[in-house]
Amino acid sequence: MPATFRVGLLGHGTVGAAFAALLEQRADAIAATTGLRPELAGVLTRSRGDFAEILDGSDLVVELIGGIEPAREHVLAAMRAGRHVVSANKMLLAQHGEELWGTAREHGVQLRFEGAVAGVVPIIRVLQESLAAAHVERIHGIVNGTTNFILSEMERTGAPYADALAQAQALGYAEADPTDDVTGRDAAAKMAILARLAFSTPVHLDQVPYEGIEHITADDMAYARELGLALKLVGSAERVDGGISVRVHPAFLYAGHPLASIGGPFNAVTVESAAITEITMSGPGAGGPQTASAVLGDVISAMIPPASTPETTASLPIVEDVRSSFYLHLEVADRPGVLAQVCELLGLQGASVKSVVQKGLGENARLVMVVHPLPESRFFAAVRLIGRLDFVRATPRAIRVIEEEFV
Amino acid sequence: MPATFRVGLLGHGTVGAAFAALLEQRADAIAATTGLRPELAGVLTRSRGDFAEILDGSDLVVELIGGIEPAREHVLAAMRAGRHVVSANKMLLAQHGEELWGTAREHGVQLRFEGAVAGVVPIIRVLQESLAAAHVERIHGIVNGTTNFILSEMERTGAPYADALAQAQALGYAEADPTDDVTGRDAAAKMAILARLAFSTPVHLDQVPYEGIEHITADDMAYARELGLALKLVGSAERVDGGISVRVHPAFLYAGHPLASIGGPFNAVTVESAAITEITMSGPGAGGPQTASAVLGDVISAMIPPASTPETTASLPIVEDVRSSFYLHLEVADRPGVLAQVCELLGLQGASVKSVVQKGLGENARLVMVVHPLPESRFFAAVRLIGRLDFVRATPRAIRVIEEEFV
Repeated sequence: MPATFRVGLLGHGTVGAAFAALLEQRADAIAATTGLRPELAGVLTRSRGDFAEILDGSDLVVELIGGIEPAREHVLAAMRAGRHVVSANKMLLAQHGEELWGTAREHGVQLRFEGAVAGVVPIIRVLQESLAAAHVERIHGIVNGTTNFILSEMERTGAPYADALAQAQALGYAEADPTDDVTGRDAAAKMAILARLAFSTPVHLDQVPYEGIEHITADDMAYARELGLALKLVGSAERVDGGISVRVHPAFLYAGHPLASIGGPFNAVTVESAAITEITMSGPGAGGPQTASAVLGDVISAMIPPASTPETTASLPIVEDVRSSFYLHLEVADRPGVLAQVCELLGLQGASVKSVVQKGLGENARLVMVVHPLPESRFFAAVRLIGRLDFVRATPRAIRVIEEEFV
Repeated sequence: MPATFRVGLLGHGTVGAAFAALLEQRADAIAATTGLRPELAGVLTRSRGDFAEILDGSDLVVELIGGIEPAREHVLAAMRAGRHVVSANKMLLAQHGEELWGTAREHGVQLRFEGAVAGVVPIIRVLQESLAAAHVERIHGIVNGTTNFILSEMERTGAPYADALAQAQALGYAEADPTDDVTGRDAAAKMAILARLAFSTPVHLDQVPYEGIEHITADDMAYARELGLALKLVGSAERVDGGISVRVHPAFLYAGHPLASIGGPFNAVTVESAAITEITMSGPGAGGPQTASAVLGDVISAMIPPASTPETTASLPIVEDVRSSFYLHLEVADRPGVLAQVCELLGLQGASVKSVVQKGLGENARLVMVVHPLPESRFFAAVRLIGRLDFVRATPRAIRVIEEEFV
């Protein structure tokens, strides 16, 4: 039986509850990889639990209380007691980061905070590790999912700001009091953290000017489209004239910009540097399970050095015949009943047509269709039969189609 | 003076030369962060250098020879001698990965290979570390920049495959012998590596069926547009019925798919899992400096555990007045000379107009323009003056515009 790694949990709100559930669900897999089985050693909420007791029984403390106090006090106490800490608290890090990082260094413990910025998008790790060699020039980020959802809705429906906000609240993308999100303050805190890491210079939330989206009109959106622009709440952190500038404001992006196509409650961050040109990372910005996943990733990293020499812990068979949607391109004689016969042969193999385009070409016609997913062997069996029909004028052409499953 | 960390370099082609240059350029900054100054201890090429000597004088060996032998033999020898190894050799890892990882584990050394897949896109680290907690369900990747460039060209210009390939060769995106790229074999090797990491199960290049893009026609592209699809060479690795499927083939992506908008020589990878929904990462796929940057990131990671408690190594001033492009929205009386006066006031502050849309609204007109970048203070000074003009009917509205600078 693997040894136990005890995790003390501070806070049991949306993210805290999701973290506790995920930890239990993934404990066996983590034990298989790391040799240590993580286990919840105690939970502190406003009404139950004792901090000193939880600290005493933990190897690592996860702080998901939010806000400044008592989160700050608990995080400092945990690190002073020699515990690694994982936090998703952007406001705390953006305002007391130097004190916290200093304490971590002083006591030789880790302070990890991937969940504080951009949900599951691993921008913290990438900035700290992958880009340790790069001289980062500039970061642009869509780091607040609430405002990105509201702007996407305004663009999609032409709705005014107030209606799109109400819609975001109804869907759970905005809180009852959305002030920190819509004013840009939440994004400013996240940009302060990213700038701090990218430029290795202290950056406090107070040094990040921010503007929100409350004054954006549907009209701006309409003109934006006309000019080929997408309107987003953009956080910028860049080197300027030997100094840096960090700020958050609504901004138009040209259609080719990697952030222009980021819609709905997604987050995305683009990092630019001469050595790497640019990297863009995107994913769901918030949500309990997503942030919990980022937090758990940090916990595992703190448990054990990363396995750069991965062991195989599974021995999975390679499946040959997978399901796929297909594009099918046929040159056929232009006569009645052709489409019906093609569809019948497809149908016999379980393939149903999703969309079809037919074009006359003199005596012939071109039939281009997309079929819904089916096992590839069955699709190709149908295509072989179709290829033998007397009205088919050229070898059928088939290309797989990948559907978006999550968004 | 910081201690020296000696890096032995095997191979001095495009990536090797770029790595040597980048290492020298970033050595001081790396020393400031890690306390160790990396230094080239020797270079092995076909015509010069002695492997045993270089190995002897190195703390870490970087393998950028490519191909199977002598790369495999050197990597194994280096690890057996207790050296960490960083390699960007996808063919070696996709065919001899288990032997190499096993040797690394046996000798307690690190084998890092971020540069082997998707250039600067840090997908290896993210899979191994950030997503260690996630049960990965599926990966879709555009992991070959050459073929993505060719397909983008075919789509953009309507050119046939042969012409787009010639264009790619002329621009240095395709080699004189492009076989490994256009047949999908290069992408298959990369997908074997990603699948191995994502599913912790052995995956060999021989188990990855692949199809290339040689038979794609301009015609397919035209229909794709009509159907709202983008054609890409897609690598897929997914869990299927208790096993896995890993393969590479041309595939259509619906417009909303995060990979659909990846154009030119870029790479991108989307990872899906219930816990994280999905993450997409994109960036330049290849090129000497980009791969060299990924390799150097690995070297730094191997030099020292990641600084999860970052020190401030700089103390940069916060710059208040930065340059920006702007969108300006004016409601004005519809009479002659209005646009000229607005442009004059802008011009006095150094603002020049990039594009303008004017619309009549009865007696009034709406003037929407985008101006080229200028210091914000100067732009806002112009806007204040414009707001006082007698023909201006409402407070001017200004929103920043972010231009794509790299692509």
